[in-house]
Amino acid sequence: MDLNADLGEGFGAWRLGDDDALLGVVTSANVACGFHAGDPSTMRRVCAGAARRGVAIGAQAGYRDLAGFGRRRIDYDPGELRDDVLYQLAALDGFARVAGTRVRYLKPHGALYNTAAVDPVQAGAVAAAVAEYDPALPVLCQPGSALARAAADAGLTVVAEGFADRAYAPDGTLVPRSQPGAVLHDPAAVVAQAVLMATEQRVRIADGASVPCPVASICVHGDTLGAVELARRVRDALTGAGLTVAPFR
Amino acid sequence: MDLNADLGEGFGAWRLGDDDALLGVVTSANVACGFHAGDPSTMRRVCAGAARRGVAIGAQAGYRDLAGFGRRRIDYDPGELRDDVLYQLAALDGFARVAGTRVRYLKPHGALYNTAAVDPVQAGAVAAAVAEYDPALPVLCQPGSALARAAADAGLTVVAEGFADRAYAPDGTLVPRSQPGAVLHDPAAVVAQAVLMATEQRVRIADGASVPCPVASICVHGDTLGAVELARRVRDALTGAGLTVAPFR
Amino acid sequence: MDLNADLGEGFGAWRLGDDDALLGVVTSANVACGFHAGDPSTMRRVCAGAARRGVAIGAQAGYRDLAGFGRRRIDYDPGELRDDVLYQLAALDGFARVAGTRVRYLKPHGALYNTAAVDPVQAGAVAAAVAEYDPALPVLCQPGSALARAAADAGLTVVAEGFADRAYAPDGTLVPRSQPGAVLHDPAAVVAQAVLMATEQRVRIADGASVPCPVASICVHGDTLGAVELARRVRDALTGAGLTVAPFR
Amino acid sequence: MDLNADLGEGFGAWRLGDDDALLGVVTSANVACGFHAGDPSTMRRVCAGAARRGVAIGAQAGYRDLAGFGRRRIDYDPGELRDDVLYQLAALDGFARVAGTRVRYLKPHGALYNTAAVDPVQAGAVAAAVAEYDPALPVLCQPGSALARAAADAGLTVVAEGFADRAYAPDGTLVPRSQPGAVLHDPAAVVAQAVLMATEQRVRIADGASVPCPVASICVHGDTLGAVELARRVRDALTGAGLTVAPFR
Repeated sequence: MDLNADLGEGFGAWRLGDDDALLGVVTSANVACGFHAGDPSTMRRVCAGAARRGVAIGAQAGYRDLAGFGRRRIDYDPGELRDDVLYQLAALDGFARVAGTRVRYLKPHGALYNTAAVDPVQAGAVAAAVAEYDPALPVLCQPGSALARAAADAGLTVVAEGFADRAYAPDGTLVPRSQPGAVLHDPAAVVAQAVLMATEQRVRIADGASVPCPVASICVHGDTLGAVELARRVRDALTGAGLTVAPFR
Repeated sequence: MDLNADLGEGFGAWRLGDDDALLGVVTSANVACGFHAGDPSTMRRVCAGAARRGVAIGAQAGYRDLAGFGRRRIDYDPGELRDDVLYQLAALDGFARVAGTRVRYLKPHGALYNTAAVDPVQAGAVAAAVAEYDPALPVLCQPGSALARAAADAGLTVVAEGFADRAYAPDGTLVPRSQPGAVLHDPAAVVAQAVLMATEQRVRIADGASVPCPVASICVHGDTLGAVELARRVRDALTGAGLTVAPFR
Repeated sequence: MDLNADLGEGFGAWRLGDDDALLGVVTSANVACGFHAGDPSTMRRVCAGAARRGVAIGAQAGYRDLAGFGRRRIDYDPGELRDDVLYQLAALDGFARVAGTRVRYLKPHGALYNTAAVDPVQAGAVAAAVAEYDPALPVLCQPGSALARAAADAGLTVVAEGFADRAYAPDGTLVPRSQPGAVLHDPAAVVAQAVLMATEQRVRIADGASVPCPVASICVHGDTLGAVELARRVRDALTGAGLTVAPFR
Repeated sequence: MDLNADLGEGFGAWRLGDDDALLGVVTSANVACGFHAGDPSTMRRVCAGAARRGVAIGAQAGYRDLAGFGRRRIDYDPGELRDDVLYQLAALDGFARVAGTRVRYLKPHGALYNTAAVDPVQAGAVAAAVAEYDPALPVLCQPGSALARAAADAGLTVVAEGFADRAYAPDGTLVPRSQPGAVLHDPAAVVAQAVLMATEQRVRIADGASVPCPVASICVHGDTLGAVELARRVRDALTGAGLTVAPFR
């Protein structure tokens, strides 16, 4: 089982999260590429650290929106979105190469992640950028999403991810954040959900039953001290359950 | 002999120069990479056009300064400058690859060009970025400059460029722009200087004598209609003198 | 009758439109404020020119999106949108004051104009910024739009604008750009529509009938040489019809 | 005696320092204006907090350099620098007015502060912006600096500031940071220096003697938890010494 988290989300003098601590926990690092976060020197540092620890580097491509941290939907022309994603992917790959490795996958960030999950046009633009740059590069996203379909249509490998701290609906989709109970706050529940996902490829829903949840990566967070600690507990629980925690593929 | 010019210097809704016309004249295109000019969709378009016409693509890396068009010296930390240059180089290479080719060289832009010509620290940062990304990639710059030395020290190939429209001093360096007569305005003089450079590797100085000027590329401009027309006259004169106008190497 | 147009839409080395020519034609200048276009020195220059010629200065506030020229809808948090608009308005007012005058109105730009025309949340954010900064400042927008309502609700004066070159529907709204005939390309038709709007406060619709169109300002364009020429013909036709062309109020 | 510190230096999702804690300590807040740090919503929040607590708001104008946090010298054209400073000053004043107060002074940030201290051209550009916007607005800077002279030449009031944690040379200037002992790290020494400055307008130098140091404001820092705590100790010591801690003038 793979554990992924967002890294390199500082910019210039500003830091967000503890990249070094996270690199000791996760097996895949979604590295910000400069459009919503992530300056070149941060990209170099995170890529070097990831390479040293055997953590896979993924391109965390986002909208061009530093002020909004990529969290505001932007109605891009699809060609411009494709080009913005390709630019970020190629730039990050430069630092990955310099660190002796390569970008191993792409996972969109923030509002682009959410939009590409439901909007076939933006999903298609993201998939097109990856397919053009390197058709062997997988896309990390939610199973069943518009992006998963667009990536498959473009001939790309789709790697499905699950969320340790989000409630799931009976149909295996996420409970929307607008609904009560959408986010799990109890650390024990988060750990238990990660273990169930990883060992049985299932997730428990509201009535206590479980439904299939076939994922190859589990997303954890690192933007607070508590988040990193929780990610470490998730990892320890997975290894405790006899699983190998390693980059997907 | 190679002819190089700056291309892709628009940004978003803004255009500068006539990229299409220039692609029909030059053999090497210094393509802006997004930090002082050049959005991703422009980079794609120029790379595609260059690939189609057999024009070599060079990374026109600049300071991160859209508002100043990269024309204001910035006192970068050398590590940050190296990373900013590497980022731009890798991003442009993404579009060059998608167009079926590769970035063939790097030439700094504006104030970075001028600073790296005299400042060993910034010159070293530029050379380090190129050497890390691809030690086979040449640097296009003025012979005798700090950048030429730093590039050679880093094991890089240096390609010397001359200027068709700039006056030269007896020691083969450029007459500073602050001095009268530093820029040639007479089209016939510009064309004659280019032909002398290309055929004899010499340049005429103020007293009418000529001094050695061993260059492999001649820089022309394309930011005005007249400039493109003049560049075309330079090219025609070179071919008229029996030279092959083609990318260096 | 007032004639308004967008001015100051360059950025740094880039220009868009002919500000000087337009300042000789329009009576209200919508001046870009730096977020989608318009650097501080351009703002100073346009404000100084407008003050000299008696042209009213309006704040052309837009989304923070230089790369997209403010033409892409962004899903702002309303508080952040209000603050971005207030920032732009106050900054432009600084240059207006230095030029001996003041900002006289606000008109949103591009995708913010279009979004605020139909989205009460963004419309409310724009109106809140104006009301906070100066409740005596009018908002220039389409009659019947969400922004017109939000501005009125906030106690602001609404100045209605019409378009000389857009087709109108029987209910007095604009024919959407997606429909054929939405934009008038015949200069004579554009001039005639402006005169009818200005003299009778009516506009002709598809079947040849006319419907009421009560506007206090007519929007013209200046992004091409032909556009400036057409704007001048509109102005000449209005004065030829005996109207005084002057800033509203 | 006045205590000033930098506030509002976050941007978007990023924070730097504890603005709320600092507002309870200082009497003058140098508020970042958006070019090197400080988004509009942060500017609103800090201005509102400052107004509520009676803290004077100053414009912390900087170079347009988010990636470098305004800490890299940029060779601006003086007209462009003047306009960039005026833009920032006017924008911040918008939020100060909305908070029921006004910008009370200007203090340049980072590399602009350092450059304007020694470079008459950049100093003159900063002073020109303030004089144009409001000739009654003081400039907060080092006594004897190029900026102090330029401000005085422009007819502006100069408010001299001292540093509680910097060593001074016998001539009353700062010991350069490149020299050992330039920064005081012992909290007791910092507090003692502030008290001596405030009560006797003198500062102790290396040999134990003291020299005149006539300042109306003392600069403290707030970018770490320890820094805020130290600032509070400085304030307490000043009030303990019988001084009134209040905004200058």
